[in-house]
Amino acid sequence: MAKINKGFLNLKENYLFIEIGRKIREYTEANPGKAIIRMGIGDVTLPLAPVVVEAMQKAAAEMGVKETFKGYEDSGRGYSFLREAAAGYYKSFGVSIEPDEIFISDGAKSDSGNITDIFGENNVVMVSDPAYPVYVDSSIMNNKQVIYADATEETGFVPVVPKDVKADLIYLCSPNNPTGAAFTKEQLTGWVNYALENKAVIIYDAAYEAFISPDCDNNPRSIFAVEGARRCAIEICSLSKTAGFTGTRCGYTTVPKELEFYDDSGTVYNVLKIWSRRQGSKFNGVPYIIQRGAEAVFSPEGMKQTREAIAYYMENARIMSETFDELGIKYTGGKNSPYIWFKCNMPSWEFFDLLLTEKQVAGTPGVGFGKNGDGWFRLTAFSTRENTIEAMKRVRELL
Amino acid sequence: MAKINKGFLNLKENYLFIEIGRKIREYTEANPGKAIIRMGIGDVTLPLAPVVVEAMQKAAAEMGVKETFKGYEDSGRGYSFLREAAAGYYKSFGVSIEPDEIFISDGAKSDSGNITDIFGENNVVMVSDPAYPVYVDSSIMNNKQVIYADATEETGFVPVVPKDVKADLIYLCSPNNPTGAAFTKEQLTGWVNYALENKAVIIYDAAYEAFISPDCDNNPRSIFAVEGARRCAIEICSLSKTAGFTGTRCGYTTVPKELEFYDDSGTVYNVLKIWSRRQGSKFNGVPYIIQRGAEAVFSPEGMKQTREAIAYYMENARIMSETFDELGIKYTGGKNSPYIWFKCNMPSWEFFDLLLTEKQVAGTPGVGFGKNGDGWFRLTAFSTRENTIEAMKRVRELL
Repeated sequence: MAKINKGFLNLKENYLFIEIGRKIREYTEANPGKAIIRMGIGDVTLPLAPVVVEAMQKAAAEMGVKETFKGYEDSGRGYSFLREAAAGYYKSFGVSIEPDEIFISDGAKSDSGNITDIFGENNVVMVSDPAYPVYVDSSIMNNKQVIYADATEETGFVPVVPKDVKADLIYLCSPNNPTGAAFTKEQLTGWVNYALENKAVIIYDAAYEAFISPDCDNNPRSIFAVEGARRCAIEICSLSKTAGFTGTRCGYTTVPKELEFYDDSGTVYNVLKIWSRRQGSKFNGVPYIIQRGAEAVFSPEGMKQTREAIAYYMENARIMSETFDELGIKYTGGKNSPYIWFKCNMPSWEFFDLLLTEKQVAGTPGVGFGKNGDGWFRLTAFSTRENTIEAMKRVRELL
Repeated sequence: MAKINKGFLNLKENYLFIEIGRKIREYTEANPGKAIIRMGIGDVTLPLAPVVVEAMQKAAAEMGVKETFKGYEDSGRGYSFLREAAAGYYKSFGVSIEPDEIFISDGAKSDSGNITDIFGENNVVMVSDPAYPVYVDSSIMNNKQVIYADATEETGFVPVVPKDVKADLIYLCSPNNPTGAAFTKEQLTGWVNYALENKAVIIYDAAYEAFISPDCDNNPRSIFAVEGARRCAIEICSLSKTAGFTGTRCGYTTVPKELEFYDDSGTVYNVLKIWSRRQGSKFNGVPYIIQRGAEAVFSPEGMKQTREAIAYYMENARIMSETFDELGIKYTGGKNSPYIWFKCNMPSWEFFDLLLTEKQVAGTPGVGFGKNGDGWFRLTAFSTRENTIEAMKRVRELL
């Protein structure tokens, strides 16, 4: 008799985005004339950079010619041209990573979940509250116990290192989705030290690193900028927000050679080796065409073009920050992050309804990311300029 | 303390392809003048069909324009244009599947492993011996017990339905990798009936279905051509061999709406619903550009162009079959399959060395796929015509 993985029975139904979709649909049906500005889901709106499109078209042409056709990649880890380009990108902000510590992936979401395959069920997972729901859901699917580190208004929505609680795996995300808060080097050092003391592994989601302002020295772009992180961290990176790859699907996961984990008797195993084994058996790499597109992102021209898109979104974020500054409403994010997380002074869902029905703007209720998010609300800076300005006008009228 | 998933400690080191690579490398270094014909790994050599290249270039251009840019796919299941095209393909050989039973994947290898995530550790997995190593490895990583169904010379290398053994999950592959044997409808019906009696689920790998000759009525292209299979089977399909997508990465997995599984107390759950939940949390879909390329495979022109490539490989297979027929050597495959699996009359590795060192042809030792493969050897029909003819000349000289 085929039996279900009981982890799936412990999942909450993911009401958040289903509920948002349902409410928007119902409102639209009842009010067909009123266009809704969507600032809920963190999806980009600007097209791919011209160098990326060009590189993918060239690669597609190569695939149509016998002499340049590419079949299976040898390792499924990614072509060395792309792993070297990603290592060069790390170097551009002062972090030294070897190309064979980089695994090309189809995005941060897949690897945030898949990485837990190599860790046993007997690991306690710590997740900040609020957090991106995938960390919790994939841990529960894997039958792992989940505990929470509070991130609240008092801590600027950065999770606080626990004193008497031991975790084996720790998910951290900076700049944070949903709160927009970026860890300082000091805060991140605190977590690295905690992990080293507990022989824990940090799974560091750096999907939004490119939104940290280049002149901002105190918010690391990578956890590997912190002393000791190579012995306790895996970093998950993505081109989704950095280069508009949400529909193009490419990211990379960095596993330092020094990183170790254990069996029950304390025998030591190398994480990179075991992750390679997992990928070798359950993954066959990212399409050649897409890898060529990703390589172009890291070229000088690609960096320039994608930086322009990021600047566009950050100007949206600035317009949003300005609005909340003027209204005197507390918020985090908007500076080194494409999210604004603000205090809505009522239950999150109530504010969602109000903003939707009164002003036709859709956002995301903070409580959807954890209990500490209640009374808070997320808006994204990924809209068009026009919609961002219009939405802020409506927010001013409402608040 | 971060702890390893103990399943990984139970894996055999995958000596097969590492060992093949090492032997070829050593031979090449010692004999730099001698070129090796590689008929080991099942990778294609013909380029992508022109309509596929064109579709991907057009899609890449769309991604560079704001109005046609695509971000996240709503569901991560695949765009409806591609799910509908795949359903239409099923229909072309008389199988009725609804588009929302189809999940677009990045290939058969990923989904062969990932699908087991939704089944608990307390499932006994049955795999044929010999078999594609991924079934065994991903089951062991998932801490599931693996048992074997013998496929031998006596059974034409089709696994025999066990009499007194109960399995909960069953991997079947037809046309088979590595043996090239294709199940008859009668044989497949036997397995479907066994699964229904035991409330087991068959994971049916149909990656080579397109190699079944269109005028061959008795070898089903899909398990869903068999009565009752919708209540006991998941089918995993791939464009890798069908359309040369080994480096382009796209396939699809079909989960019928009727399919059910259970918890320990016998409560019934819907497999499609749970698989959707898994994909929603751990996968973000296949690149838009690649999905447009895959859609083109299913167009009339795409079918015509990919059929030409399959015919080319099948002519290679015919040349190979002819050689073994003339030599009077026993083999399976070569008719409805791109593999020839022949009796080498000595331990597989011994023959590997002999063929490599005497005739500079690299194949795959049968024992690498399971103990029943010893004394047998696999060659692929995916080489160029020239290399295939030359390799057969050398085989004739040797045998």
